[in-house]
Amino acid sequence: MADRFEIRLAGSGGQGLVLGGLIMSEAAAIFDGKFATQTQSYGPESRGGASKSEVVISSEEVDYPKATNPDVVLLFTEAAAEKYLPLCRMDAIVIADADLVKTEIPATFKKKVIVPLTKIARDGVGREFVANIIAIGLIRELTGVVTEASLDKALMQRVPKGTEDLNKKALALGKEAAHTYGKHVLEMKGK
Amino acid sequence: MADRFEIRLAGSGGQGLVLGGLIMSEAAAIFDGKFATQTQSYGPESRGGASKSEVVISSEEVDYPKATNPDVVLLFTEAAAEKYLPLCRMDAIVIADADLVKTEIPATFKKKVIVPLTKIARDGVGREFVANIIAIGLIRELTGVVTEASLDKALMQRVPKGTEDLNKKALALGKEAAHTYGKHVLEMKGK
Repeated sequence: MADRFEIRLAGSGGQGLVLGGLIMSEAAAIFDGKFATQTQSYGPESRGGASKSEVVISSEEVDYPKATNPDVVLLFTEAAAEKYLPLCRMDAIVIADADLVKTEIPATFKKKVIVPLTKIARDGVGREFVANIIAIGLIRELTGVVTEASLDKALMQRVPKGTEDLNKKALALGKEAAHTYGKHVLEMKGK
Repeated sequence: MADRFEIRLAGSGGQGLVLGGLIMSEAAAIFDGKFATQTQSYGPESRGGASKSEVVISSEEVDYPKATNPDVVLLFTEAAAEKYLPLCRMDAIVIADADLVKTEIPATFKKKVIVPLTKIARDGVGREFVANIIAIGLIRELTGVVTEASLDKALMQRVPKGTEDLNKKALALGKEAAHTYGKHVLEMKGK
């Protein structure tokens, strides 16, 4: 399947990665008319608080719902970076939280994007817990895997009442971050 | 894998099936020390509001995270019953909401459990939205696939602050419903 697109969001419990993955997959399936899965995998290591959410988006039915060779990998904690960076292919978009990930992402990853997601959430919205929404806004802008309008609608369906404006702002900050921290990635796709 | 256990929760958006599946899988992996996945699959039919959450629990790493031949199937809407009942194997535990599912579950399903989940939520807790928690309490009691203590802990990690008591009560109502509506299933497993 040429158009299968895989996203891996790796971090710890409480960072909202399941919700972030859900919103991406719902944007694709409910509003863009594609097929999508969101999978949350747990092993005994979950005791340490690790969390991983994977999204697969395709124009055909998704037969295998786990990410096998992700196009986009978000590393949201140092533990996630240590575990999943070695599994990243060289041409993947590798996004790392600038403050939470200490591992250096080698320059061979030409599409690495080091971005202070949590700091942007804190400074821009006053709430660290929207860092997940900033992340999906960033991923959308970098990849175009879902449309902006669909991500907006999917976000509004999932967020608690009363937090709509806060979350819309977070999505906008994610878009902005793509241009500030990921300009080289946008240029590589000739956009 | 002899001990692979599959649960399919099928209904519509807003019934909390993703959350229900997450809590089950976290009970298994974080607190029972097993491996688990939770997968949410979407196709274009999601436009109609359909929602399906699948949980796979195993003592070994879960290679294929979708339910292929579920041990337990929850049918939470008429649309879910029409779509997924034909896929149920005869010895599966088939749980249907008594008020929302009109399709008759044939007597050949010896482990069918027809239970007014939504009504129990409304009458017992005053909140229909805890029907998903009643459902997982019911499934736990019928199957023992996760321990009671683990499900309790996983529930408390996931529910919003201030709703702990409400959710604990829902879980207890689910356990009770297993004995009221699923006694034949409990007897079949010699419990």
